[in-house]
Amino acid sequence: SQDLAMTAGKNARVLLDNDKVRVIELMIPPGGKTGMHSHGDNVVYFLADGDSSQTMADGTTKTRHTKAGDTLWSGPVTHDTTNTGKTPAKALIIELKAK
Amino acid sequence: SQDLAMTAGKNARVLLDNDKVRVIELMIPPGGKTGMHSHGDNVVYFLADGDSSQTMADGTTKTRHTKAGDTLWSGPVTHDTTNTGKTPAKALIIELKAK
Repeated sequence: SQDLAMTAGKNARVLLDNDKVRVIELMIPPGGKTGMHSHGDNVVYFLADGDSSQTMADGTTKTRHTKAGDTLWSGPVTHDTTNTGKTPAKALIIELKAK
Repeated sequence: SQDLAMTAGKNARVLLDNDKVRVIELMIPPGGKTGMHSHGDNVVYFLADGDSSQTMADGTTKTRHTKAGDTLWSGPVTHDTTNTGKTPAKALIIELKAK
């Protein structure tokens, strides 16, 4: 499976990585993509308002508008996220590591 | 032990709370305190620059300056945090729940 910190390159900054959790700060410019990647259980906290579309592993897509402060839980998932807005997308991704 | 979401009252907003994680957005005005509270394993992500002093359960204190984006890991701890700065302290607290 693809690691976001690799696929997103310089757009992803690993802030903390230990045996229990990894925290990534993601900054995607308008029109930018993360690249297809997988997560285990994770929380996304949006640092700025934005619009994005996500292509799932099965090819389906969904679009969403998010506000700074929105906090989303997700179980294991594989997707590619595109910033469809006009401003940089900024989010904190907290990945929980299986015990 | 004391729950931050109780001791900090309206200064703490619970954004997400499930069986694996709780996410709290904390906003402490200048001079404000969280009240003595306990955490299990947790990550703190600072949303704004700030100065704070923490009184630990054993009465010892430590002061620190933090910058927006600073990310700190902590194992279980009991402390009271005071905003010693002139601007509101803003932080995201991600508490990991024991499996």
